Amino acid sequence: MEANKTYHVAVVGATGAVGQQMIKTLEEQDFPVSKLTLLSSARSAGRKVTFKGKQITVQEAKPESFEGVDIALFSAGGSVSKELAPEAVNRGAVVVDNTSAFRMTPKVPLVVPEVNEEDLKKHNGIIANPNCSTIQMVVALQPLKEKYGLKKIIVSTYQAVSGAGANAIDEMKQQTKAVLEGEEFTPEILPVKGDKKHYQIAFNAVPQIDVFQDNGFTFEEMKMINETKKILHDEQLQVAATCVRLPVETGHAESVYVELNKAGVKAKEIQELLSESPGIVLKDNPAEQEYPMPADSVGKRDVFVGRIRKDLDRDNGFHLWVVSDNLLKGAAWNSVQIAESLVKLNLLK
Amino acid sequence: MEANKTYHVAVVGATGAVGQQMIKTLEEQDFPVSKLTLLSSARSAGRKVTFKGKQITVQEAKPESFEGVDIALFSAGGSVSKELAPEAVNRGAVVVDNTSAFRMTPKVPLVVPEVNEEDLKKHNGIIANPNCSTIQMVVALQPLKEKYGLKKIIVSTYQAVSGAGANAIDEMKQQTKAVLEGEEFTPEILPVKGDKKHYQIAFNAVPQIDVFQDNGFTFEEMKMINETKKILHDEQLQVAATCVRLPVETGHAESVYVELNKAGVKAKEIQELLSESPGIVLKDNPAEQEYPMPADSVGKRDVFVGRIRKDLDRDNGFHLWVVSDNLLKGAAWNSVQIAESLVKLNLLK
Repeated sequence: MEANKTYHVAVVGATGAVGQQMIKTLEEQDFPVSKLTLLSSARSAGRKVTFKGKQITVQEAKPESFEGVDIALFSAGGSVSKELAPEAVNRGAVVVDNTSAFRMTPKVPLVVPEVNEEDLKKHNGIIANPNCSTIQMVVALQPLKEKYGLKKIIVSTYQAVSGAGANAIDEMKQQTKAVLEGEEFTPEILPVKGDKKHYQIAFNAVPQIDVFQDNGFTFEEMKMINETKKILHDEQLQVAATCVRLPVETGHAESVYVELNKAGVKAKEIQELLSESPGIVLKDNPAEQEYPMPADSVGKRDVFVGRIRKDLDRDNGFHLWVVSDNLLKGAAWNSVQIAESLVKLNLLK
Repeated sequence: MEANKTYHVAVVGATGAVGQQMIKTLEEQDFPVSKLTLLSSARSAGRKVTFKGKQITVQEAKPESFEGVDIALFSAGGSVSKELAPEAVNRGAVVVDNTSAFRMTPKVPLVVPEVNEEDLKKHNGIIANPNCSTIQMVVALQPLKEKYGLKKIIVSTYQAVSGAGANAIDEMKQQTKAVLEGEEFTPEILPVKGDKKHYQIAFNAVPQIDVFQDNGFTFEEMKMINETKKILHDEQLQVAATCVRLPVETGHAESVYVELNKAGVKAKEIQELLSESPGIVLKDNPAEQEYPMPADSVGKRDVFVGRIRKDLDRDNGFHLWVVSDNLLKGAAWNSVQIAESLVKLNLLK
C-alpha cells in the first residue's frame, strides 16, 4: 500500500448483513480510512454504527452523498447500484459493487483477488464482486486451472439463508421454532422475496435460489455458470450448477465435480496443491473425520476444501467439498480485499 | 395375488422408525396377514403395538421366534440380520432384509420392484432391500436406462436424519432448540453413531454418512455406487456419490447428473418418460415454482422428480432433482412392495 495515503470510504447498505461485515472488516484490516461515510435507504437512515470506537450516523444514500468519496462499497441491492454507482463514479469514486447489477457488463472487471487481481487494471470506475457461491468455488478451482487446465465443472450447492438477507434469517428461525412447537406458520419470504410462491425452509431443502430463467435454470445457477467463465477467462469452460437453499444461517457448501484437462493426476497432488494456494485451508483427513462444514466456517475468511477424491471411473475427474462464510469471502471480505488491491496497485484516483 | 392365501408375517425391529412404518404399511395395503409376529431387542420387548385394531405384544427376537413364519421383514441393524436372518430362512421363512448385511452378497437379490422385480425369482431365502438413497435414485434412472442407456451418474445427496434412527432425530431437535435459545450442547450421535467424533447437525450440513472407507469415500457413498450397479445389472455403469446429512427430519433429496448413451434427447422427452413411469411423480414446472422438496414428500410413497434440465454443454447430459420419503420408498414401503411381489410371483414357500 502507498505509505501514509488515506481514503474517504463509503459503504452503501451500511445497515444490512453484508454492510455490517464490510465495516467490521475495514476496521479489522486497518484499511487506511480518512473518512467513513455510511449510507442506506431512507428507512434505515439515522441509525448509528460504531467504527474504530466512534459513532457514525447512517445517512440516506443520494447522488450527492458521493462528493469527495474515493472508494464506495455497494451492497444495497441491484436497483440501488444501478441508480447510484454511476453517480458515485461521476463524482470520482471507484465503486466495488456486491450486487449482480454490473457483473456481466463486459467493461466491468469481475474480481476475486486470489484469482484475477490483474483484471482490476482494466476498470472504468466500477468493479463487480462476484456472487457468493461463485467466489468460493473459483478460489478452489484457480490452482487446478493453472496447473492442469479445467474442462468441466458440475456443482451442487448447499446454501445458507443469510444470502437472502436478514429477513430470511428471521423467517428461518421463527419457522424452526414453530415446527418444533407444532405451531402454524405462513412462509412469506423464502425461497425468493417477491416471487409468486413461498415455501417452508425449516427442516427442508429448497432447490430454488433467485428466480427461474427460461432455460429451466435459476438466475443463481446461471450466475455461477457465467461468472465462473468470466473470472477464469474461459468461455469454453463447461459449467453446470444446481443451487439449493438449506436451513443453515451462514456458510455455503458446495459439492464440486471437476474434469481436468490432464489425465493421471492423483488426489494427493491436488491436496498438496490446494494446501499451498492463497485463500484456501485444506481440511481433508477422512481417517480423523476432518472435513469442512458450514457451522465451522462462520466468521472465517478462508475457503475450506476437503473430501477430495479421484473419480472412480474417469481418470481426469475429481470430487471436492468447498465451504466458506458467504457473508465474508462470499461478500464483505472479498470486497475489502478488492479495495486493498486497488490501493496496492495504485488504481484509485 | 393368490386368492385367499394368507401369511404369517414377522417384523424384526418392530419398535424402530422403519419397523413402525412397515407395520402401518402392511395394514394400509391390507397385506394378507394370517398372523403378525413383532420382534425386537430384549430392551424393547414387552411394548404393545396396534395392528388392525388389535394390540400385539413385541417379543424378543430369537431363532425360535421364526417357527412357522412365512415372511420376515428385518430392520433392526446389520448385526441382528447377520445373526437371525439365516435362522429364519432355516425355519422356512423368506427374509426381506432392510440392512446392508447381505446387499452385495452375489446370491442375494437386491430389489426395487419397479426396477428389477424379476430378480426375486433367483432368491435363496434372503432378499435385500437397498439403501434408502439408492432406491429413489434407481427408480428415477431405470426408465432412462431402458430407453436411452446410461453412461455416467454423479449424485450429491441431501439426506434427512431419520435415516440415522430415532435417536438422531431427537438429537437434531434438541440441538436446534439449544442453538435458538443460545444454550450449550454436546453432539453425541451424528454424523455416525459410534464413530470417533460427533458434530453439530442443527443449522449445518455434514458431508459424512456412515464411516469412511480407505478410498476416501464413505460407506454410504459406496453403497450408492455398488448397489446401483447391482440393481441395474450394469457393472460398467459409472457412478460417483457425495453424501451429505442435513438438518431435515424426513425426506432425502438428490442432485443427480446423468450422461445417457444417446445424444440428441430433449429435456421434454425425459419429463414425459418419467411422468409415465412406475413409482414416479413428475413435479417439474419452474414457471409455477413447482419442484419436489423433502417437506412435501413426508408420508408419501412416490419418488418425486423435478428440475429436469439438459446440460448446457454435453448433449447427452441431464440434471435431475429426486426426492422421496426415506422411511417409506427408501425402506418400509419398498420392503412391503417386495413382500407383495413375492406373493404375486408365488415365490413364498
